[in-house]
Amino acid sequence: MAHDHGKWGCACWGADDQIGAANLITPAKRRAALRSIDNAKLYDLSQVTDAGAPFMRPNQPPFLLMMWSTWRDAIARRRRIGITNDAGSNVERVEMTMHVGTHIDALGHVSKGDRLYNNRPAADTLGDWGLAALGIEQAPPMITRGLLLDVAGLDGGDHLGPGRVVTPEELAATAAAAGLAIEPGDIVLIRTGWGRHYGTDNARYLEGEPGIDVPAARWLTAQGVVAIGCDNMAVEVLPNPDHTRALPVHQHALAEAGVYLIENLALDDLARDKVTSFCLLILPPKIRGGTGAPVRPVAVV
Amino acid sequence: MAHDHGKWGCACWGADDQIGAANLITPAKRRAALRSIDNAKLYDLSQVTDAGAPFMRPNQPPFLLMMWSTWRDAIARRRRIGITNDAGSNVERVEMTMHVGTHIDALGHVSKGDRLYNNRPAADTLGDWGLAALGIEQAPPMITRGLLLDVAGLDGGDHLGPGRVVTPEELAATAAAAGLAIEPGDIVLIRTGWGRHYGTDNARYLEGEPGIDVPAARWLTAQGVVAIGCDNMAVEVLPNPDHTRALPVHQHALAEAGVYLIENLALDDLARDKVTSFCLLILPPKIRGGTGAPVRPVAVV
Amino acid sequence: MAHDHGKWGCACWGADDQIGAANLITPAKRRAALRSIDNAKLYDLSQVTDAGAPFMRPNQPPFLLMMWSTWRDAIARRRRIGITNDAGSNVERVEMTMHVGTHIDALGHVSKGDRLYNNRPAADTLGDWGLAALGIEQAPPMITRGLLLDVAGLDGGDHLGPGRVVTPEELAATAAAAGLAIEPGDIVLIRTGWGRHYGTDNARYLEGEPGIDVPAARWLTAQGVVAIGCDNMAVEVLPNPDHTRALPVHQHALAEAGVYLIENLALDDLARDKVTSFCLLILPPKIRGGTGAPVRPVAVV
Amino acid sequence: MAHDHGKWGCACWGADDQIGAANLITPAKRRAALRSIDNAKLYDLSQVTDAGAPFMRPNQPPFLLMMWSTWRDAIARRRRIGITNDAGSNVERVEMTMHVGTHIDALGHVSKGDRLYNNRPAADTLGDWGLAALGIEQAPPMITRGLLLDVAGLDGGDHLGPGRVVTPEELAATAAAAGLAIEPGDIVLIRTGWGRHYGTDNARYLEGEPGIDVPAARWLTAQGVVAIGCDNMAVEVLPNPDHTRALPVHQHALAEAGVYLIENLALDDLARDKVTSFCLLILPPKIRGGTGAPVRPVAVV
Repeated sequence: MAHDHGKWGCACWGADDQIGAANLITPAKRRAALRSIDNAKLYDLSQVTDAGAPFMRPNQPPFLLMMWSTWRDAIARRRRIGITNDAGSNVERVEMTMHVGTHIDALGHVSKGDRLYNNRPAADTLGDWGLAALGIEQAPPMITRGLLLDVAGLDGGDHLGPGRVVTPEELAATAAAAGLAIEPGDIVLIRTGWGRHYGTDNARYLEGEPGIDVPAARWLTAQGVVAIGCDNMAVEVLPNPDHTRALPVHQHALAEAGVYLIENLALDDLARDKVTSFCLLILPPKIRGGTGAPVRPVAVV
Repeated sequence: MAHDHGKWGCACWGADDQIGAANLITPAKRRAALRSIDNAKLYDLSQVTDAGAPFMRPNQPPFLLMMWSTWRDAIARRRRIGITNDAGSNVERVEMTMHVGTHIDALGHVSKGDRLYNNRPAADTLGDWGLAALGIEQAPPMITRGLLLDVAGLDGGDHLGPGRVVTPEELAATAAAAGLAIEPGDIVLIRTGWGRHYGTDNARYLEGEPGIDVPAARWLTAQGVVAIGCDNMAVEVLPNPDHTRALPVHQHALAEAGVYLIENLALDDLARDKVTSFCLLILPPKIRGGTGAPVRPVAVV
Repeated sequence: MAHDHGKWGCACWGADDQIGAANLITPAKRRAALRSIDNAKLYDLSQVTDAGAPFMRPNQPPFLLMMWSTWRDAIARRRRIGITNDAGSNVERVEMTMHVGTHIDALGHVSKGDRLYNNRPAADTLGDWGLAALGIEQAPPMITRGLLLDVAGLDGGDHLGPGRVVTPEELAATAAAAGLAIEPGDIVLIRTGWGRHYGTDNARYLEGEPGIDVPAARWLTAQGVVAIGCDNMAVEVLPNPDHTRALPVHQHALAEAGVYLIENLALDDLARDKVTSFCLLILPPKIRGGTGAPVRPVAVV
Repeated sequence: MAHDHGKWGCACWGADDQIGAANLITPAKRRAALRSIDNAKLYDLSQVTDAGAPFMRPNQPPFLLMMWSTWRDAIARRRRIGITNDAGSNVERVEMTMHVGTHIDALGHVSKGDRLYNNRPAADTLGDWGLAALGIEQAPPMITRGLLLDVAGLDGGDHLGPGRVVTPEELAATAAAAGLAIEPGDIVLIRTGWGRHYGTDNARYLEGEPGIDVPAARWLTAQGVVAIGCDNMAVEVLPNPDHTRALPVHQHALAEAGVYLIENLALDDLARDKVTSFCLLILPPKIRGGTGAPVRPVAVV
């Protein structure tokens, strides 16, 4: 696990950089990930998003979907202007934040004081209609090696409990046991087993969660990971053991290290099949100025 | 171009089927597409979505993005409850339809009279909060071969004009000239050159568009394509030459053939590099009941 | 309490009528109400609407208010185009139904089967973008006599309990005790004491409520009331004692009798001062096609 | 027209004051206005709000109304849980700012630099979810004398043109010709004739408008008016003759003088009947933290 603390885990791609650790997905890295594919078996790593998706009050509002155009009325409108083929358009209206369901955080999502990633002043970067820089439209398509670190069983059950801090040592041991060596450009997915409560018991899902704290985040970012994903709401442990801190892993990963966070993942299928290394595909829709985006991460082996 | 009219271009995967022609992406088809990748060069085929994205009144409402939580206020809220690490959360609120920017249509998007794909009664399928079946969460990740049919220059310029119907014969000739044979499970992307007006001259982009009509759509679906994409708003020619018909290609593709439509694509980079065959990745976020989803289609060669 | 069952409590103002019992507010009625004012003391009968306002899932979505334009960013935008007087515009975006906070129901709010008020077919009247008839923009300004029937103490406490049906006999006795005779064109406000839970204990406010059932509603509409208001969510008792019926009072009042309902009223100040007869002002904003509107009802004595 | 420049046209009701010139509507003032009513004839001074309502980009977003619950689906949902009386609930979802259609501005709507009315720091007052002070829920019901100053014919036509500044001298002459003397606690409505374009020719309505500039605003506020209304989008002339200034009348009225602005009024009926003095009723719904509210102003004579 050789790595260079001066090179990763920090903003080190120039003053104009907006993509952070995604710089580490070189063409060679992408090629290697794609070439590792064998049978092209596919794992869908996403939860379904609907009005029952969990959200964290008050900083997140609920997801709502309703209809803007419905087939009956669209047909009637069209008949009134002489259209006879009765094409009934169903078109919804969605009110949402980008942080609902399975999603990826943009680097501009969380500040450290008045600074965003790469020392950008938040005051100049965030406007009324989104991020003028570091928005999710800057994030490139991510095709790289993904690794699963399944720590769900560490405490002897099938999932960790809320507030349970996953340590760097535990991550290292889990990786070693699976024969995995984290390399620059990798995306690491951590399975805590907490995803079982997503949408089935939101109250429990949200009252806290197992996850990493800053030490494990630093351990990962120092090795050059592009993103850290987890089967929970925030990747990081909630509540933080230090009650004077909120979202410190977000601050380190996004604002300091330029490392993306992927939340509300569905990792049970990978774990069931003991798939720990795979080609991972994450393609965030380009919502300009968005602080994140809904995604459909897929693992291919 | 042997094909079986009885097999594709119709709903033929059983009464319970909800994924239509995506059934044609077999593991072997996906594997072949992935194995065709050489250097892993990547083409981003999506436009950026923002409040300036074109939309078709009145059946589509505008995209709006505003802020729900901003760093300054989030920090102030957290300080009031004893948090001292000043994590400033930027979280937006988006009001949108799924049919804005580069997106894929769900099979339940358009009806033929009171029927949706696979003869499902629209009255039983569409409710106040979306599609109970045929929603975009049913669409599988699409990893398959993509083909570019670049017809932009057919009229001697660099793009076709609004109302210009692209015929099956023109598609066939374009494919033949590029040495392409459409096969079941392929996704065909048609470049008309109209995408140049997306977001730069929305009035023009929306006043009409070049595209296919039903004959070309039938020609494609009969060959077993999974989806048809285009660098315009609706895939199909607008206005339809027959002014008594609206969205007949949508009706045929979605409701009859179970073939997806992908709209507002950015295809200029592929055309510039004369890339006509590629591994295409389309991963629609699983918005339950959604009549479509924003996507970030990527071609890899 | 002479009244004519053939005249009121039914749709009896012609086939084109869209205002129902508001027809009973004649100029003379309005004049009399205004002339009854003595010191012009004013009672505000409305609750405050915010994100903490109660709403009934799933048929009502939550109220959300966020900012579209904020002073800092507006000033910055204006400076960039040469404006120097630093006018900072604060403009919100609200996502709401009209049935939140203190509001009035439009006659088209609830159907009886496939019929709305005045036997209008719901299928022809409700479209994707609201009511083509019977919307709240049809409701005239209401300036008429208001009567308070304070039944909060009927069970010996300071409020009635959830599920408690208020009978016509109790209303009649309450009116008689206060020396009140209901007359055509009046608006009757019923105080149950349940309003104390509005916004302070929404779970309780919504788990049920005291209120009238159909017999009391018929008793009121037969006397020619224009509207019935209450300090609860639905005017009517919830849950209905007959568990096979939902909103029967809404059906009778709105769809049969053309009588408006006013919900989530704040009636404690009137009760404290024992004000039972007053000039009542209700001025619904004209939201075209709206199924209701937020209002600020005011009593003047 | 005796008045005291030290008393009105400035914030002079104490450091905690949040209602500004509404303090001038004393019980005696309200009583006098109500007692002036003769036949109780009513004039509705509001426009209808719908998706065709004009709005000023980019600082205002469009009004949208769609359905959240529709009768057919509500009946179906209820039948599934054993309800048999087929109450079909029609409930809309509205996405709007408070500054659409006929509305009143809250005192916290526009800042003068970093200060709102009464020298309140905007930074402390405006949060992510609205105004912590000076929101529209603070505005009291307004029942007072209204005066119409009809300047529409000043240039010999039936309306003034865009950019036409209405001067204090013209207002004074118009008042004098009508025999009107402005008194503290009055609300002055100015008719320019521009309202004819509301909703009928929005492009013209918004490309500019006739209205007052700061001198006329100061002349009015110095006389103790509570609010200034107009049949245009912003009360004030647009564009301002001084192109380096935006919304200076808003700054003076709202932020300096604590005087409310009422916009998009419908004043033609009053003018037709030459009604220049009346009892004016404005009852803003209490939307907490709102920067304004839709209203249904009514004049009664």
